[in-house]
Amino acid sequence: MKFGGSSVGDADRIKRVAQRVLDRAREGHRLVVVVSAMGDTTDDLIDLSRQVVESSPSAREMDMLLSTGEQVSIALLAMAIRSLGGEAVSYTGWQAGIFTEPNHGKARITDIRPHRVLESLEQGKIVVVAGFQGMTEAGEITTLGRGGSDTTAVALAAALEADLCEIYTDVDGVYSTDPRIVKNARKLNEISYDEMLELANLGAAVLHPRAVEYAKHYNVNLVVRSSFNTREGTRVKEEAVMEQGIAVRGIAYDKNVARISILGVVEKPGQLAKVFSALAAERIDVDIIVQSGVTDGRADVSFTVSLSDAERAMQVIERIRDDVGYREATSQTGLVKVSIVGAGMVSNPGVAARMFEVISSLGVSINMVSTSEIKVSCVIDAERLNDVVRALHTAYDLDTDEQAFVGGPAERR
Amino acid sequence: MKFGGSSVGDADRIKRVAQRVLDRAREGHRLVVVVSAMGDTTDDLIDLSRQVVESSPSAREMDMLLSTGEQVSIALLAMAIRSLGGEAVSYTGWQAGIFTEPNHGKARITDIRPHRVLESLEQGKIVVVAGFQGMTEAGEITTLGRGGSDTTAVALAAALEADLCEIYTDVDGVYSTDPRIVKNARKLNEISYDEMLELANLGAAVLHPRAVEYAKHYNVNLVVRSSFNTREGTRVKEEAVMEQGIAVRGIAYDKNVARISILGVVEKPGQLAKVFSALAAERIDVDIIVQSGVTDGRADVSFTVSLSDAERAMQVIERIRDDVGYREATSQTGLVKVSIVGAGMVSNPGVAARMFEVISSLGVSINMVSTSEIKVSCVIDAERLNDVVRALHTAYDLDTDEQAFVGGPAERR
Repeated sequence: MKFGGSSVGDADRIKRVAQRVLDRAREGHRLVVVVSAMGDTTDDLIDLSRQVVESSPSAREMDMLLSTGEQVSIALLAMAIRSLGGEAVSYTGWQAGIFTEPNHGKARITDIRPHRVLESLEQGKIVVVAGFQGMTEAGEITTLGRGGSDTTAVALAAALEADLCEIYTDVDGVYSTDPRIVKNARKLNEISYDEMLELANLGAAVLHPRAVEYAKHYNVNLVVRSSFNTREGTRVKEEAVMEQGIAVRGIAYDKNVARISILGVVEKPGQLAKVFSALAAERIDVDIIVQSGVTDGRADVSFTVSLSDAERAMQVIERIRDDVGYREATSQTGLVKVSIVGAGMVSNPGVAARMFEVISSLGVSINMVSTSEIKVSCVIDAERLNDVVRALHTAYDLDTDEQAFVGGPAERR
Repeated sequence: MKFGGSSVGDADRIKRVAQRVLDRAREGHRLVVVVSAMGDTTDDLIDLSRQVVESSPSAREMDMLLSTGEQVSIALLAMAIRSLGGEAVSYTGWQAGIFTEPNHGKARITDIRPHRVLESLEQGKIVVVAGFQGMTEAGEITTLGRGGSDTTAVALAAALEADLCEIYTDVDGVYSTDPRIVKNARKLNEISYDEMLELANLGAAVLHPRAVEYAKHYNVNLVVRSSFNTREGTRVKEEAVMEQGIAVRGIAYDKNVARISILGVVEKPGQLAKVFSALAAERIDVDIIVQSGVTDGRADVSFTVSLSDAERAMQVIERIRDDVGYREATSQTGLVKVSIVGAGMVSNPGVAARMFEVISSLGVSINMVSTSEIKVSCVIDAERLNDVVRALHTAYDLDTDEQAFVGGPAERR
């Protein structure tokens, strides 16, 4: 069971989680509980570091600082479970045997040696483990970066060969689309790892992509469910059953998109490579790339980057102007990327065509298109996002009669 | 160098400590810095645990919780030193190799294996270590209880064979008496371990007795000095030089005193043993004990306990009434214990007599008396405390012309 920061945001919520854990234990399960830092703890600690150090603080010391957040949560949760009559013991990342690369702030888990966890489980205890943190082989405390607690939970589940890894969050599960846009979005009972990865990457921030990748690699049975009610949630697994006649599982969107166009690029081998190598050297991720046909020995290239990278990307393009040889470079914001995702797409021709049709029928122009085996993405004007998502949701038969439960913002640590 | 909680109470103070440490390092010293949790952190964490658990929380989980306080301090101080251009690295108790008994909440240090500390020192780094905490051989996080950070500092100094262990606090050093009572109290340049123990136990809360005992045992050179100025402080060592003609080093007092009297105890062998065994079984510490002469086969016994134990002590006495056989038991508060302390007393007859003389000349009655080789204590009416301390201070030639620096309350963790 993994509970994020808002699920353990204050003393009352911690008590509620403790009760929930205990109820589950009394069903006869052996349980490991992974928790994040309480609510705003991490932000508060970052603020504190900024008061002490003006420039960027040592990543090692930042990990030393931030890892205290989860340590507070595990201690409190273990206390709470014990006070309700359960047997519980808390372990920090290093105590739980979670080993990572020596890469402070975004370490990857390299190994899990959970003998203390196993020993406590044998003794009938509920084991509470700090998410988001680990230790290097040299005994240095590390943190795993964004989505770290999800990854801790999945990795521990894999190492312990757990029957199930439940990710408790503030939504009922994974929805066919954002319930804030489509009131009658459908809660999915099942979804495949690959589909979940596409949805997670596209902004449906319920489960961190790294955790999903890990789960896929070790074939961990995942469930995403609400920490505020006992509804079933969404199962994430290798092969998910598709409901009859439905080719699209869900509709995602990503507002963090800027389009950069380089117009009139002199067409000769290696020109595109120069552009994208220069961007990669600055660690700017490029998503969709579209190149026009060549006219008069020149071509237009467009690509998307995240909003925060747009300005830096333009500086890079400006710097290589003479080298690449182009007429003009422009950057465009106010866009959004809408995607349909579904493993059933491969065997359903015409799914993409239907998407273009629906969008066009709303009078919305499609700026860019990108496709993979299980998704089609279109970049459109952000102002028309809601209309497009709603129309697509209906067009792919995803509407349901039930009204979706909409909680607060999803937890991302 | 050890800095207590109020010395690292906020971001600015941490920066000031960092500068201080760096200045010291630039004098050519190799430094280990032990720090406590920031200001009220420990109390805040205790509050948090009370919100989660009504009854007494698990001691193991309390240690898990409280040890985060120092971990925050060490990370911030190491960052601060680095941002000022120093090389620094922080270590938690377990990382610094501080091993303790498996006695949560008040563990004693059993061993120190400081290879990581030594390695970092070799590399020219300033090592920042979390006070108050350690690890059992089984890998459990423990805390050392009251005065724990002082003990960490002294124990590390012993293990590293340090030239000096500096305890930075919010007073200039150890004074001949409480400067809040006697404005011209004398800052002592030197004091022996034994004298310091008597002063510490008697309420001059600058340095924890356990740390002094540890220093005495391993012959660690201690200095108590201010974290707010660069004055010399007080050296604590085996043999301290006495200034010419002065037999008394200092005057201490303890307001945490209640007197319990058992009147008309039937005089027969083993009666006293019954009383004090019963109290010991309830973990009630008894300090001064006075027995009157026997009249008509009955005697009066009086003893002191701490104020918080007085009520429980009376219950114990009541319970053994029939067994012991006494006429009446009374408890008295509003008392204070005043003590003169000095290694020179042994060779100066008449020091105790002078004390009684001074107190009597003020018209104050002496309730109880207790003596050891290096101290004489009198229990008197608390209302006359200041008069008595001032008169004794003058009588033993301790007054000085300089006005004492008086900071906030001393730090005790």
